[in-house]
Amino acid sequence: MLIGIDAGGTSTRAVILDRTGRCLGFGTGGGGNPVALGPAQAGRGIRDAVESAMRQTCGRGAGGSPLPGAQSGPGAGGIAVLAMAGASSFVAPGAMAASVREFSGVDYVDVVSDLIAMFAAGGPEESGYVLVSGTGAAALRVEDGTVAAAADGLGWLLGDAGSGFWIGHRAVRAGLGALSGHGPATAIAQLLREDLGLPPDDRRTPRGRLMAVETAIDTFYQMQPIELSRFASLVFRAAKIADPGESGDRAPAGFDADADPVAKQILSRATELLVQTLASVRVPEMPGPVVFGGTVARRLPGLVEAAQAAFEAAGAPTPSVRIAADGTVGAAVLTLRAAGVVVDQEIFDRISTTLHRLRR
Amino acid sequence: MLIGIDAGGTSTRAVILDRTGRCLGFGTGGGGNPVALGPAQAGRGIRDAVESAMRQTCGRGAGGSPLPGAQSGPGAGGIAVLAMAGASSFVAPGAMAASVREFSGVDYVDVVSDLIAMFAAGGPEESGYVLVSGTGAAALRVEDGTVAAAADGLGWLLGDAGSGFWIGHRAVRAGLGALSGHGPATAIAQLLREDLGLPPDDRRTPRGRLMAVETAIDTFYQMQPIELSRFASLVFRAAKIADPGESGDRAPAGFDADADPVAKQILSRATELLVQTLASVRVPEMPGPVVFGGTVARRLPGLVEAAQAAFEAAGAPTPSVRIAADGTVGAAVLTLRAAGVVVDQEIFDRISTTLHRLRR
Repeated sequence: MLIGIDAGGTSTRAVILDRTGRCLGFGTGGGGNPVALGPAQAGRGIRDAVESAMRQTCGRGAGGSPLPGAQSGPGAGGIAVLAMAGASSFVAPGAMAASVREFSGVDYVDVVSDLIAMFAAGGPEESGYVLVSGTGAAALRVEDGTVAAAADGLGWLLGDAGSGFWIGHRAVRAGLGALSGHGPATAIAQLLREDLGLPPDDRRTPRGRLMAVETAIDTFYQMQPIELSRFASLVFRAAKIADPGESGDRAPAGFDADADPVAKQILSRATELLVQTLASVRVPEMPGPVVFGGTVARRLPGLVEAAQAAFEAAGAPTPSVRIAADGTVGAAVLTLRAAGVVVDQEIFDRISTTLHRLRR
Repeated sequence: MLIGIDAGGTSTRAVILDRTGRCLGFGTGGGGNPVALGPAQAGRGIRDAVESAMRQTCGRGAGGSPLPGAQSGPGAGGIAVLAMAGASSFVAPGAMAASVREFSGVDYVDVVSDLIAMFAAGGPEESGYVLVSGTGAAALRVEDGTVAAAADGLGWLLGDAGSGFWIGHRAVRAGLGALSGHGPATAIAQLLREDLGLPPDDRRTPRGRLMAVETAIDTFYQMQPIELSRFASLVFRAAKIADPGESGDRAPAGFDADADPVAKQILSRATELLVQTLASVRVPEMPGPVVFGGTVARRLPGLVEAAQAAFEAAGAPTPSVRIAADGTVGAAVLTLRAAGVVVDQEIFDRISTTLHRLRR
């Protein structure tokens, strides 16, 4: 049994696969990040995802084809790879690994960084770069499958420049500025009004502020700061950038003519900051590839082009680019490697294709 | 009985005074902000401060001079003014006012904004501007003792540009950048090492980061975000700016030659942002005065000069400047006004002088 698990803050995805890279079962569960959710809740999310994937596999096993290679080679007793943020902290990973071993019956569980899994989701290469921007943001240089250098990933309070939090944080400030008249007008303000259900009129509080503004401020302070990341989507909407969903399509190279100027400015600055983060782990000896992952990095117009231009400006060749649309693919790749399988392009493509079919 | 109360987040100060502005008793208690601390704890802080001020007054009343005017005019049964942040919110002020009425025996308690009290601490004028930067930052235009316009004051997450939080937040990021080698060297890094007791050596974690950096990051995320404001003091120390304490002295107009460049840059930017905040409430019809209050505004080199220059650049005359070193003076001024006393320069000076004597 080979199990790849991609445990995120809001959901967990698990895949059961054989040694040829054929995905046999896929399942999802609640958030699986023990740092954010605590080990008990995270453990439930992971277990739900794995058990759901197992049920799908059994259904197939009963009426379907045999599972080639699943019972041979190293790790025959079962191997799982659990990709999650905070994998390098000291306490939680051990507990999570033990929990997965217990309920799934595998012999061995490897806990790896979600960023390494995102790199592996981009292609079969074992060395290169990955730039991830989702709720947070970080870049790695990966050499032989391990972290050679890391940049940012410092969290919402101290870094994560160009991340979903970063964009969402600027979105609410730009929206408040426009609502109160202290900042430039922006379509973000109206989207914020709708999203929060703010009073539509111009009534004022005794403090002299608009009720809509005070209500918004109260709402933001009642949230966990990290939750501001959800307002990043308003900026993309104001900038007329479609959601790529689970596709591996590149974001557009630029903005439409009717993109909101303030939204455009926020996203352009996010792009600049992410390119800086990536550039700070670049070394001349490593030409690429560069993997782009995370909902924000996959959606930012011109990010790929700006990153390539930064490599060229440093005298390096244009790096090849991979879009990592599905972190579960990376968890599957790392699971095969942990089982001693050399993942080539053919196996990588089989993982992507068969997983994609299961997820539909 | 006339009681002025200045309730802050970390301490509360109360003064008992007569109708001539003579301060008879002064006392302190714990934090008195119900928004930050909850009504119960804030109520205790306020009560401790008032009771301590009453004890000092009684001691004086026994062996000292009679209290002129204390038993005549409107409010003879006793008036208190409670200055606190969040005075315009809906629930807490009423509860705090009721609590003060009950334990002190006064007839009437007025709850006012701490910013209005800070304005009143600058001088006897009833109209002008106040720029406050302490933990937070805001500016008001005050007309006839009430708020005519307000800017910023949006709290650490959404605004407070140039505040103690803003400076402390930049301090920790600059310090982390210097420690990890990703940012320019700065004296702030060494001050942060000492302040947090970080590992002095260059040992690294499995993630490849310095242990000192990881320890610092963990420490910051275990704090409440607003607590980062305490690191503002490291920036002032690195920039060689002395603490003005309770003096009403102006900050120096510029930096010493041996000021740390990164610290200087952070403080210069804070100054720019505060001047913008102040400028956004300025109207041509109101020439001044401008009151500067709060530990940061009183300590920022060149802030007064930059604010005056901004008025001049808009074609206005150079505004006169007041330094509000002691918010309790403002609470006392507002208490006299609530009791129907017209506070002129003579009475204002008497409050300042007699309160200063009690506080020593």
